[in-house]
Amino acid sequence: MKQEILQLQQEMKKNGVDFYLIPTSDYHHSEYISNYFKCREYLSGFTGSAGTLLVTLSDAYLWTDGRYFLQAEQELAGSGITLMRDGMADVPTISDFLKTHIQAGQTLGFDGRLYTTSFIIALQRKLSAKKVQIKYNLDLPHKIWTDCPPLSSEPVYHFPESYAGTPVSEKLDGYRNYLKKYRADCQLLNGLMDIAWLFNLRGHDVACTPVFLAYAYISTKEAILFVQDGVLTNEAKEHLLTNHVTVQSYETFYEFVKNIQKKRILVDHSDLNYCCYQALSNTNVLLRCAKWTTMEKIVKSEIEIENTKNCHIRDGVYMTKFMYWLKHTIKERTLSELEVANYIDNLRLSDRLALDLSFETISAYGSNAAIVHYSASVESNAVVEPKGMLLVDSGGQYLDGTTDITRTFILGPITDEEKLCYTTTCRSMLHLANAKFLSGCRGSNLDCLAREPMWELGIDFRHGTGHGVGHVLSVHEGPNNFRYLVNQNNLDAVLLPGMVTTDEPGIYQTGKFGIRIENELLCKKWKRNEYGQFLEFEYLTYVPIDLDGIDVTLMNKQEKSWLNDYHKRVYDIISPHLIYEEKEWLKTYTRPI
Amino acid sequence: MKQEILQLQQEMKKNGVDFYLIPTSDYHHSEYISNYFKCREYLSGFTGSAGTLLVTLSDAYLWTDGRYFLQAEQELAGSGITLMRDGMADVPTISDFLKTHIQAGQTLGFDGRLYTTSFIIALQRKLSAKKVQIKYNLDLPHKIWTDCPPLSSEPVYHFPESYAGTPVSEKLDGYRNYLKKYRADCQLLNGLMDIAWLFNLRGHDVACTPVFLAYAYISTKEAILFVQDGVLTNEAKEHLLTNHVTVQSYETFYEFVKNIQKKRILVDHSDLNYCCYQALSNTNVLLRCAKWTTMEKIVKSEIEIENTKNCHIRDGVYMTKFMYWLKHTIKERTLSELEVANYIDNLRLSDRLALDLSFETISAYGSNAAIVHYSASVESNAVVEPKGMLLVDSGGQYLDGTTDITRTFILGPITDEEKLCYTTTCRSMLHLANAKFLSGCRGSNLDCLAREPMWELGIDFRHGTGHGVGHVLSVHEGPNNFRYLVNQNNLDAVLLPGMVTTDEPGIYQTGKFGIRIENELLCKKWKRNEYGQFLEFEYLTYVPIDLDGIDVTLMNKQEKSWLNDYHKRVYDIISPHLIYEEKEWLKTYTRPI
Repeated sequence: MKQEILQLQQEMKKNGVDFYLIPTSDYHHSEYISNYFKCREYLSGFTGSAGTLLVTLSDAYLWTDGRYFLQAEQELAGSGITLMRDGMADVPTISDFLKTHIQAGQTLGFDGRLYTTSFIIALQRKLSAKKVQIKYNLDLPHKIWTDCPPLSSEPVYHFPESYAGTPVSEKLDGYRNYLKKYRADCQLLNGLMDIAWLFNLRGHDVACTPVFLAYAYISTKEAILFVQDGVLTNEAKEHLLTNHVTVQSYETFYEFVKNIQKKRILVDHSDLNYCCYQALSNTNVLLRCAKWTTMEKIVKSEIEIENTKNCHIRDGVYMTKFMYWLKHTIKERTLSELEVANYIDNLRLSDRLALDLSFETISAYGSNAAIVHYSASVESNAVVEPKGMLLVDSGGQYLDGTTDITRTFILGPITDEEKLCYTTTCRSMLHLANAKFLSGCRGSNLDCLAREPMWELGIDFRHGTGHGVGHVLSVHEGPNNFRYLVNQNNLDAVLLPGMVTTDEPGIYQTGKFGIRIENELLCKKWKRNEYGQFLEFEYLTYVPIDLDGIDVTLMNKQEKSWLNDYHKRVYDIISPHLIYEEKEWLKTYTRPI
Repeated sequence: MKQEILQLQQEMKKNGVDFYLIPTSDYHHSEYISNYFKCREYLSGFTGSAGTLLVTLSDAYLWTDGRYFLQAEQELAGSGITLMRDGMADVPTISDFLKTHIQAGQTLGFDGRLYTTSFIIALQRKLSAKKVQIKYNLDLPHKIWTDCPPLSSEPVYHFPESYAGTPVSEKLDGYRNYLKKYRADCQLLNGLMDIAWLFNLRGHDVACTPVFLAYAYISTKEAILFVQDGVLTNEAKEHLLTNHVTVQSYETFYEFVKNIQKKRILVDHSDLNYCCYQALSNTNVLLRCAKWTTMEKIVKSEIEIENTKNCHIRDGVYMTKFMYWLKHTIKERTLSELEVANYIDNLRLSDRLALDLSFETISAYGSNAAIVHYSASVESNAVVEPKGMLLVDSGGQYLDGTTDITRTFILGPITDEEKLCYTTTCRSMLHLANAKFLSGCRGSNLDCLAREPMWELGIDFRHGTGHGVGHVLSVHEGPNNFRYLVNQNNLDAVLLPGMVTTDEPGIYQTGKFGIRIENELLCKKWKRNEYGQFLEFEYLTYVPIDLDGIDVTLMNKQEKSWLNDYHKRVYDIISPHLIYEEKEWLKTYTRPI
């Protein structure tokens, strides 16, 4: 068995723990985790972005999903850790595995700060018949990992109102009205996007997400921000002072939580980590309720919308220039996936308002594009040739907004099947983007508009049609999205004017090719009449959809006019920012079909 | 104040009740109620099919919905009862009204047998701050209503396996496996459709629904049917005996319930009435869980499907003959709405397997059709002329199945607007009917396929696009349906092969016209491939859609081919059952466009 696992098992014995869980998470359930939190990677040797390690006194198991089966096999070889292929028919889930293997009276340990309350409550329900002991206050990995890098503590700066839109004072008033509505005293926030949005601050502690490590406490009288010592810029300090926000040290948060007593507290089980929940639950009245910020931050203000539109124009110019470069260069020489990714990344990062990419660029050529979460590495880096298709999914974090766009480019000859799939994907994107709908609709009501052109052919894509997009926060931000599989516990939000959602259908043929076309859509008001308020979408993304992939005979009149209208707007918006040759080329690639 | 209300107030005083509720319901929450249960009508004088009467010691209030505002105004005139127009912005709901008006310590009374557990629990939650006393065992109206007709007690007969499909023994085994899965001892059934389905029995105690008054108790060891004395036919008795079903008297049910002790009982809050719930709750462990029959009865067996298809052919022949008669007769003379309704009703009721209509036929001419729940009466009975449109929504209960169909007929010249709306309604129906979709979809995922052609024009219809249809039970039977407004507590079922759902979009222009086109759709398997099991719909309804209303220029190629394919099937299936002249006429009305 791997040395680090043996050491952990020693610690488990010392602490009277029979089973110990190490997820891939930080104290804030962030999508990307910083180095300090990479305990699962340190202990197991597996470097993938998702997975959970379960260690018993004699064994160790690593659960990860289909994206990482191959990589995990290689990285776990010789470690003594058993790979559990999540989602395979014969592989139990972690909670089912625990249910089977844990004995009455045995102890399950974990660091409760790494888990949401809802996850642990569901797990406890699963194990309820077993009378299992739970120790949730155990951070064992950091006892072993002696050379663990420190917590990221990048500067935290003021995100001015000209970008943020709404003043902090107004947001805090909103939060307090929400507390009053539920006759509550306070709410604690764990989520970094919520905190950055609420206080109009930004930072750089999480990859591709301009947020910073923090907790917050909002009461009817106080607002306390818990951040690491020394990270706030002077401007940020002054901004908080002006808004009557108290600053306390990140390290003192759990001590603070312990001392909260006899309060009526709003608790969002999907946000609050389990340690906080436990600390609060006995001495307070907990009212289960979504945090106020969830809906507030996802419905963009007018200023945020204006800013977002601006950044999308610049982003569209970079993508169009990139497309011009790609279509011309591939006629002259081969490229590599990474070279292509670097080209578009450099264009974005040279923007005067650029903060970061909004996620690691996916540049996937040929059959690599059939792997939905493909990430080119130095090893996999495929040669890009003047044939077939290249899928590029990328985006930027700018001071004025966050972008996410996918285009699939035709680099040379493609087959009839590829053309059918490309055209169908384009039709799918257009059908959803052009929906008119009544207020009250959810994304799950509209998702089939994108899927129906594919379902008619017996084709599907195994991912959501779209996700909510945050504003200079996370590029993946709910609770709005487009998908069809919902249940009582997992219903998507009603669509509201001001929400931004991606529209990104795709077709993936394993071993052959992958196609995805993604535009961002802004929800806005359309007609109002005796039937109520109708809504519609407005494109935020303006970049040509490669006409070399379109078989015009497969599109009906309405679909052609949707595509032509879109391309006319692309030309009108993007061409003023291009040089002559690019402009002439763009005219061809936005021509009516 | 009306005499009957004064008498009720006397009874309330005697029983220490400050507020008394009288809903429109029976002990089984049936859609139609028989005469014994019409207490609200007796006390208030209001004869509509929906409404709740609330009586205080000094006042009385009647809530009813938009269909009945006018009628209620007239019928309540001089009664001293205040009309509460449900759904109007300034009118509180009953529970909100109670919350405002009832004082701490006051007593609310009602007959708990008339309310589902979920309704009363929600009401109690609403009133929780008020410390209201609840008396749920009070049937006061029947103390006053001395000449109340007795309970309906029509014969209950055996519904043979050749029609029912699955033997009772198999159904009871299924129920017992369900109980075991939840480690439960038993479940009580209140719902008449569930009971009729489970025991393969039918009766005639509820209008348009071939069911009978009954309760049932299913345990791991016993099955007890509570029916009125003397209603079972000899054959039915023998059938129950063979299947080890004990029969007890309907009147002894609540005594039986009181004696259930120390059991683990599955309780479906939407089915079990509040009296049962109360009787069980202290002395047993209640496990909240849907009754097994809900999903089982709505997914038709192969024999039920075959029977359903047969009855739809005969029903389609009657509707087609009716259409032939209507289109010819209107050229010769005027008709009336009731005459039209009688014509189609007589055709159906002459069927050798006819049991009843499946609901009161809606025959609505011109602007009457804009009233969604219009019901022609001797007073309203409009003259039907050779111009405009006539909407007929009707169906039959046959021994081999239940039908529901709407057609809107063009009787003479119509306007361009009417043609646009007619064609759009037809396109809406076709889009939903021709959907292909992956297993896991709910009706709420697909509803927008029907609405999108209307929403694009800024038009909507204010009813669901479709409802589940029972098998020789209720024509309105969930939990499958097509609608887009869902929430966590009210999510529609996942669509499964064997479910039957109507597809009935419409357009209604107040004061002008109403259009609805309704076909029944059977959900069935389509392709299965690497993406999973695809599903599709098959039409059950085969009746021409009046081509005189269609503007061909408004339909695309795919829509025209959908309509032509449908009409070809109509001709192939229906024409063999017609006489020569009808057949020739049908050829024209099913011609390709």
